[in-house]
Amino acid sequence: MNIELALYQPDIPQNTGTILRLGACLNVPVHIIHPTGFHFSDKLFRRSAMDYAQNVQMHEHDSFQKFDLWRKQRNKRLVLMTTKTQKSVYEFEFNPGDILLAGRESAGVPTQVASICDALVRLPMAPRLRSLNVSLATAMILGEALRQTDGFGPLS
Amino acid sequence: MNIELALYQPDIPQNTGTILRLGACLNVPVHIIHPTGFHFSDKLFRRSAMDYAQNVQMHEHDSFQKFDLWRKQRNKRLVLMTTKTQKSVYEFEFNPGDILLAGRESAGVPTQVASICDALVRLPMAPRLRSLNVSLATAMILGEALRQTDGFGPLS
Repeated sequence: MNIELALYQPDIPQNTGTILRLGACLNVPVHIIHPTGFHFSDKLFRRSAMDYAQNVQMHEHDSFQKFDLWRKQRNKRLVLMTTKTQKSVYEFEFNPGDILLAGRESAGVPTQVASICDALVRLPMAPRLRSLNVSLATAMILGEALRQTDGFGPLS
Repeated sequence: MNIELALYQPDIPQNTGTILRLGACLNVPVHIIHPTGFHFSDKLFRRSAMDYAQNVQMHEHDSFQKFDLWRKQRNKRLVLMTTKTQKSVYEFEFNPGDILLAGRESAGVPTQVASICDALVRLPMAPRLRSLNVSLATAMILGEALRQTDGFGPLS
């Protein structure tokens, strides 16, 4: 069991494409929770995902409720990446099989969704007016989760 | 002394803007080694850097030779991020003050530049036809370097 990623109703096609590429390169499955704010035929999406979308384990879920049921049936923890917590990813203990959930770029996740998550984690940054973009923050947190769980592939 | 980033003759404005934003958010200085493949007035650069370019410690160097002299006078190690090594960042011991060098998106760095670097490191990915984009790989490696050197800012 490896770490997995999930995107909650993503609305920026380039970020979604970039994260699918990240999943393909690191062999990490990516869950897309619909509705998305763009079509997969979007030019910006296809340009950022390039040909990686064919190589990633991508799973689409019609709604958060269906996604949540899916992961609970598999006893997978849902770990929300958010700035609305004081828990640093570097102080959090990831388990193999954990799903890292990224909120919408524009609005995060609704309070109700956050309350369903098993844990909330963030990068340790001093608060600023603005923050890292979602794909970079996701990559950094995924890297720490893979490091802790020995989830990186071997170097040949 | 904190970790620093350096970009060798970057040629994709969006990546440079994204990395400047990364530096601003994490309080990590960013060195730009000229010539760049675009002008800082480029619309794509300004859009990706947003207003972060004003908040990052950015240092411009006319040439790699001048940059290299600058860092050697300060006894700073130069650590090249490259796929042309078998050394994983997770097996490498970063020191405070290390400068992480990213190559051109299109062509990496010349052999001569690589040979001057104190170390070469990479993310542990199985070899594939293609790879992570430079800004995501840089963010992941920077995260590991900051974790090891206790270089993240405090959570307020």
